[in-house]
Amino acid sequence: MVAGIRTPNPLNESTKNDQNRHLSSLETTMPKVYGELNQIQKNLEAHFRDMQDIEFTIQDGRLWMLQCRTGKRTGVAALNMAMDMLLEGLIDRKTAVMRVAPSQLDELLHPILNPESEKAAQVVGKGLPAGPGGAVGQIVFTAEDAVKWSKNGKKVILVREETNPEDVEGMRVADGLLTARGGMTSHAALVARGWGKCAIVGCDAVHIDLSKRVLTINGKKYPEGSVFSLNGTRGFVYDKAIETMDASENPRFQEFMKMVDTFRTMGVRTNADTPEDAQMALNFGAEGIGLFRIEHMFYGMNSEAPLSKLRKMILSESVGERKLALHELAPYVRAAAKETLRVMDGLPLTFRLLDPPLHEFVPHTHDKQKELAKELGISVEEVIKRGEILHEENPMMGHRGVRLGITYPEISEMQFRAIFTATAELIKEGLRPRPEIMVPVTISVKELDNQKIIADKVHKEVQEQFGINFDYQYGTMIEIPRATIVADEMARTAQFFSFGTNDLTQMTFGFSRDDIGSFMGEYIQKKILPFDPFQHIDEPSVGKLIEEGIKKGRSTSPDIKIGICGEHGGDPQSIHFCYRMGMTYVSCSPFRVPIARLAAAQAAIKEAK
Amino acid sequence: MVAGIRTPNPLNESTKNDQNRHLSSLETTMPKVYGELNQIQKNLEAHFRDMQDIEFTIQDGRLWMLQCRTGKRTGVAALNMAMDMLLEGLIDRKTAVMRVAPSQLDELLHPILNPESEKAAQVVGKGLPAGPGGAVGQIVFTAEDAVKWSKNGKKVILVREETNPEDVEGMRVADGLLTARGGMTSHAALVARGWGKCAIVGCDAVHIDLSKRVLTINGKKYPEGSVFSLNGTRGFVYDKAIETMDASENPRFQEFMKMVDTFRTMGVRTNADTPEDAQMALNFGAEGIGLFRIEHMFYGMNSEAPLSKLRKMILSESVGERKLALHELAPYVRAAAKETLRVMDGLPLTFRLLDPPLHEFVPHTHDKQKELAKELGISVEEVIKRGEILHEENPMMGHRGVRLGITYPEISEMQFRAIFTATAELIKEGLRPRPEIMVPVTISVKELDNQKIIADKVHKEVQEQFGINFDYQYGTMIEIPRATIVADEMARTAQFFSFGTNDLTQMTFGFSRDDIGSFMGEYIQKKILPFDPFQHIDEPSVGKLIEEGIKKGRSTSPDIKIGICGEHGGDPQSIHFCYRMGMTYVSCSPFRVPIARLAAAQAAIKEAK
Repeated sequence: MVAGIRTPNPLNESTKNDQNRHLSSLETTMPKVYGELNQIQKNLEAHFRDMQDIEFTIQDGRLWMLQCRTGKRTGVAALNMAMDMLLEGLIDRKTAVMRVAPSQLDELLHPILNPESEKAAQVVGKGLPAGPGGAVGQIVFTAEDAVKWSKNGKKVILVREETNPEDVEGMRVADGLLTARGGMTSHAALVARGWGKCAIVGCDAVHIDLSKRVLTINGKKYPEGSVFSLNGTRGFVYDKAIETMDASENPRFQEFMKMVDTFRTMGVRTNADTPEDAQMALNFGAEGIGLFRIEHMFYGMNSEAPLSKLRKMILSESVGERKLALHELAPYVRAAAKETLRVMDGLPLTFRLLDPPLHEFVPHTHDKQKELAKELGISVEEVIKRGEILHEENPMMGHRGVRLGITYPEISEMQFRAIFTATAELIKEGLRPRPEIMVPVTISVKELDNQKIIADKVHKEVQEQFGINFDYQYGTMIEIPRATIVADEMARTAQFFSFGTNDLTQMTFGFSRDDIGSFMGEYIQKKILPFDPFQHIDEPSVGKLIEEGIKKGRSTSPDIKIGICGEHGGDPQSIHFCYRMGMTYVSCSPFRVPIARLAAAQAAIKEAK
Repeated sequence: MVAGIRTPNPLNESTKNDQNRHLSSLETTMPKVYGELNQIQKNLEAHFRDMQDIEFTIQDGRLWMLQCRTGKRTGVAALNMAMDMLLEGLIDRKTAVMRVAPSQLDELLHPILNPESEKAAQVVGKGLPAGPGGAVGQIVFTAEDAVKWSKNGKKVILVREETNPEDVEGMRVADGLLTARGGMTSHAALVARGWGKCAIVGCDAVHIDLSKRVLTINGKKYPEGSVFSLNGTRGFVYDKAIETMDASENPRFQEFMKMVDTFRTMGVRTNADTPEDAQMALNFGAEGIGLFRIEHMFYGMNSEAPLSKLRKMILSESVGERKLALHELAPYVRAAAKETLRVMDGLPLTFRLLDPPLHEFVPHTHDKQKELAKELGISVEEVIKRGEILHEENPMMGHRGVRLGITYPEISEMQFRAIFTATAELIKEGLRPRPEIMVPVTISVKELDNQKIIADKVHKEVQEQFGINFDYQYGTMIEIPRATIVADEMARTAQFFSFGTNDLTQMTFGFSRDDIGSFMGEYIQKKILPFDPFQHIDEPSVGKLIEEGIKKGRSTSPDIKIGICGEHGGDPQSIHFCYRMGMTYVSCSPFRVPIARLAAAQAAIKEAK
């Protein structure tokens, strides 16, 4: 029976189904034993105040209880049971909040593959579950095709070797993403989770022949347009259509979340870079934006124009050329800042200064190179040459973040002016924008001081220009090990810290998140690491650095505001750690906001015990 | 006079020279004042017990003393003066040891440009002083040309955009190296310092047109074969021949170093990867090898055969293919281990397991790709494809070091067997080899435990095979921040720690040493950093991690042996720090061994005060 090779007899008449309708039930065959079992079950569930999985046997007409444990359930079931038991007075509100695992909320927010239909299908490939939920559609191999097919009303699954910023428009229109390479924090995974999109990454079995438009998996060939289904919650790939279901319309979800917030003490913000994402996060209950990545406005929809200006800026060779390009870029940054500040009216919005991986924005296709050459008034060869100069051996530890602002102060100045001008314009409209400026990749308070001189100068100029006064907050990412060690000095200038635990994990482990795919699997399997440290904060190392950073920061600035904006900000286990560390808020992608709210409430309940 | 636009009158008759022979001396013009000055000078030097720079003026026949300070001197002069004053009984031995700055010893070990001739020449370019000393030769632009020209008896300066392992043979034969890109720890700089070769790196002014074989500096064109001179101690480039001088034959050098060692308590080892380098380091007073990089046997002289085997191993796709390639590679590793163990007879030799930047060993030229394809029995396209799979976004934080040993245990096994077999064979010859095995890039004791199972198995097998017993030491690099934080656990398995401060600095700062060229200059100039942290240990951050690592390591293993093998191991300021931390030894490139001995002795003297 445990092996599933026998169809068990039904317990009673009322729960008979198609598989066992022909079999007699325990209720009719052994009415006395059935009554006994029924009573024991009621006693057990009353005692444990939760649904139980019960194992029993009947020998010579006598009932033997073997074991019982809390029954497994889906997210929808967990929510319904918790609310039912609360209404029945079986459990109190605190217990009801604890009954739903934060990760189970995912199910309520994404369409999923119907588990019954999925059971009947054959898995053809496995990858990392990078974006939860389910997706069904026709496979295409380029972002352009995804856009084209989707315009023709087709549901598509975008299959790529790996993705880059140029694919973003295709990723946005696709129902699901499947990549052959990349880890849980690869570009594809980050974008997918940000949008709550179903995605499977690092699926080794995937081999794409782009010229022939054919996908090969385990020797079997699938032409463009073949129908695939993805289970992004488990990382399973299917080569046929599987029924989906939408579980998000559960009417009790809002009610439950309202209750959750009564126990929560730590703030929950969101990582959002567009007015649309900001609005979505607000609907999910976000209390501010903890991370607005200025460079993200160059990814995706309608970004062609600003992207070409950014490229122009990046490939500039002189201060003059760069200032001209920045001048053209400024209106886009100001508009993006203004519209998102408008959506977040009255709530804090943390703008992180540009931290673009420069080489990613250098055009690689001949067409784009030609286009840019024309715009810059230089030869294609010159575009290629300047691009090569920007090449870095290890861009993650290269000329990025505040290092750009130190060497090219005009880049910082443009951003400060865009943000302050947007703020001033909104104040004139009668709104209450609350901008916060966050400096990335810092290692020393001297970097913060250097940039603040520019910020304060521009702040003063904009206030004078508009004839108004307004405040802004000035803080820093803490994402490089050195920053955690000298946090006491950083806190002399920074009004807030936001732990960037993606980069902090990279540097603490010496793990490039783009490259760990080749060994992380074996590290987990051989139990060298208990889990992927990009999924949960590694408390013995990254956690220790965070603890020291907070302690030191508060030693010079006791009330400093402290948050987290790495991917861990949406991970329940890490959120619990952040609560213990006394953080002011966590910030996560819009779709994870409800999860973070629940995890933060549960942390408060658990730690109060 | 200070501006140098007047020729000063001579002090006395005996010091007159060609420039001032026609002028009257102070001695004859103002004998009384001269006598007074002479006496004051004697008093001052007796008081300060050192040569003094004295400023004075004479007004209306009256002598005014303006200031005096310890006089600047060359390394040769410093050594001579210290030994003279010691003999004269003016200073004691301790003071004599303190009188020579460790960095001044460099001059005694390398030929230098004649300072007088240099003064008369025009600097045409400036770069980073990556390898001290002077060099004069004809410029060539490829390693092949360097080899060819040098075989024809010509002195050459190899000028490259940047260097890679394929250039090593050309670097070895060149008298000097000049690169357009790279920092103080770039490939060119590391190799040059290891060999004590004059090198200037990151000289922005250098533009090479390889097809036309022309070097352009500030618009001026120099064809291949033009004569250049380099001052690698200061980073100055000259476009003509400048006289050189060899200061290393000073007979008092050995005498001085013998005295130095009587004050030294910390050990000094060397980083050497060949019997030749090991012998050179022994001559310079090394007491062991602290870092033998197994992959370095694939750089340079006579390395074509093993390099092709290594490439075969790296590009293997299956365990079978890889084992075959390892089998072919093993004899080379065993021979290299054996001959270096032989040179170091009776002294400890730390073998670091392979930590090759894999992609660097993938052939990039079509010829080499064809060659390898033939050897592997696969197509050129397949060689290119396999090479691309090895591509990493940030190789410094990728699949390297012990991570290779975890995923491909057969690679570690080959190395253990090579080292133990070499050891056993030497014992059979009556020698006393002392092998130490060091695991690189570790983050957890579980990696050490995983690899030790393999090492112990092979150790047992080799002992049985040869019918002898011998010991080996097993330890780890501490070069990733996490390793310093969990050092207490690491020390449960490791018998020694060696701090790899190059990588530790990279991760602590998030600075890729290959890529900092684009911003480090401004960081120093704008005083954001007091110095390049790859030159001196940054005590507030990297230093703190080292301190914590040592404290934690000794908390579980009080007698654990602790050393350093990063470039900082040859930097006097960092050596002083290592002494304060209570390290057992420092390890540095052969040419820096005398410098390290002096720095260690001076640290002991200073800290004893």
